[in-house]
Amino acid sequence: MEPRKITGDAAGIQEFMDSFDTILFDCDGVLWNGDKLYDNTIETLNMLREKGKKLVFVTNNSTKSRADYKKKLDGLGIPASIEDIFPSSYSSAIYISRILKLPPNKRKVFVIGKNGVEQELESEGIPYIGGTDQKYNRKLSTADCEKIAAGDPEILDPEVGAVLVGLDPEVNYFKHALAYHYIKQNNAVFLATNLDSTFPSCGTFFPGAGTCSAPLIMMLKGQYPTSLGKPSQAMMDAIEGKFKLDRARTCMVGDRMDTDIKFGIEGGLGGTLAVLSGVSDEDEVLHGSTKPKYYVNTLSDLLYKEE
Amino acid sequence: MEPRKITGDAAGIQEFMDSFDTILFDCDGVLWNGDKLYDNTIETLNMLREKGKKLVFVTNNSTKSRADYKKKLDGLGIPASIEDIFPSSYSSAIYISRILKLPPNKRKVFVIGKNGVEQELESEGIPYIGGTDQKYNRKLSTADCEKIAAGDPEILDPEVGAVLVGLDPEVNYFKHALAYHYIKQNNAVFLATNLDSTFPSCGTFFPGAGTCSAPLIMMLKGQYPTSLGKPSQAMMDAIEGKFKLDRARTCMVGDRMDTDIKFGIEGGLGGTLAVLSGVSDEDEVLHGSTKPKYYVNTLSDLLYKEE
Repeated sequence: MEPRKITGDAAGIQEFMDSFDTILFDCDGVLWNGDKLYDNTIETLNMLREKGKKLVFVTNNSTKSRADYKKKLDGLGIPASIEDIFPSSYSSAIYISRILKLPPNKRKVFVIGKNGVEQELESEGIPYIGGTDQKYNRKLSTADCEKIAAGDPEILDPEVGAVLVGLDPEVNYFKHALAYHYIKQNNAVFLATNLDSTFPSCGTFFPGAGTCSAPLIMMLKGQYPTSLGKPSQAMMDAIEGKFKLDRARTCMVGDRMDTDIKFGIEGGLGGTLAVLSGVSDEDEVLHGSTKPKYYVNTLSDLLYKEE
Repeated sequence: MEPRKITGDAAGIQEFMDSFDTILFDCDGVLWNGDKLYDNTIETLNMLREKGKKLVFVTNNSTKSRADYKKKLDGLGIPASIEDIFPSSYSSAIYISRILKLPPNKRKVFVIGKNGVEQELESEGIPYIGGTDQKYNRKLSTADCEKIAAGDPEILDPEVGAVLVGLDPEVNYFKHALAYHYIKQNNAVFLATNLDSTFPSCGTFFPGAGTCSAPLIMMLKGQYPTSLGKPSQAMMDAIEGKFKLDRARTCMVGDRMDTDIKFGIEGGLGGTLAVLSGVSDEDEVLHGSTKPKYYVNTLSDLLYKEE
């Protein structure tokens, strides 16, 4: 079906309002760009809340925890409770604790990632190693190689049952060697917070979380990790589990057709709303392979009222 | 055609001897395993030279230069001149200098790799940056991001016309960010010394040179570099250019069907010889998708003479 543009279309906006109780928001490109809020973002979110909508902020950025995101939202003046925030660091933690159910002697997670992941693992009581521990910021030595080859518990913790890979600006060869051997020797489950190939910053692109998994995917001859970020449905299942939402009355709002809108469509949500303020443009919205149900130029177009 | 096993087959060995003037050898798994020579390797190579065969040592290992390899061969007692050695560090250098022909103001190469690559680029008079320069062993800062986004020549050298990626145990996020922007902003040619997913060591596997390219391949939405290692035919072209060999009278010897034997077959060589002393076993030789013309248990089987 052709996406319906509801910018300046009061009837379209009314239909949108009547259709959904829960609205899942991607953040960057929808609410703000980098550190700059788009005009009237706060007014739009307030209007939606006044109409009784439940708002959830869903982001693939795993470098931040929910608490970090709460600070960011506070700083931008967006009212939100920590319970409304769903970053991939958190979806990873609840997937591990509530769905994966590692055996008691294999409960540790080897982390390639930052504080956000660590904090959310802690909040779920999941033991982990790696992450920001500076002892992993070193070269692989010949002695390491020999210990790894021998499965020495001094270097390969026998209790590691999962490898979780997120964006880690301090990723290195040593961490990848360990992660590979945890997967091969310990039979650890291979997980990723998300697989975004790029990370938008300063108006351009830098290596995304997916690039921290890419070496392992290649070593494993194309075996992908289970991703806990959009568009993976493991994330949608985690959201549904937490909020007990009615998918038919839920809408996903986002700026990227290949992650946000795909995530909503594959999740069987009642609808999707694309905004043109971020990555995808109108041509992609209308003619791409993944099309939203509704679209607007910018989120605040939802404030429109007929004179 | 069914591969012919010539172990203990004097007529088969004679046919092999009569068929080739030049023999290209993979090294690890064929001549030695790690640092241990297989029995009678030297005697076999001497016998081949006495029969007038030209021997060339072809390896994907780019961390070593020809001079480094010469030292390794000397240490193992294998007589060889530096001119007989063809590592992917060298094939990369001669590809860049003799085939790629970068424009005069774009002659610099941004290297992710080790000394082997640097030495061979120097031997061909190719200017480079990156590599083992310790100033690249650091985190990407916010100031870096802004400079990169702005295309600041302080951080992105405008003379870089190629990115060459080999095995680098000190690979990091900063180097990948720079490499990506050289490819996107400078339109630099994306090259790899080789794309081996794993690197055999200590009887197991560690991340191979391909894993240093993998993050870039993902960021570039699946665009692969031109590989200068087996089984890429760019390496065969470089070998042919140097040795002026007659492909019909040349044989590739190796232990891996998917790299060595594929390399020989796709290069249209007169023949291929597999050895079972390395990675591929007899089942793969006989029933895999890539089959050699001849095979032996171990290279020294070529010494066999009928009583």
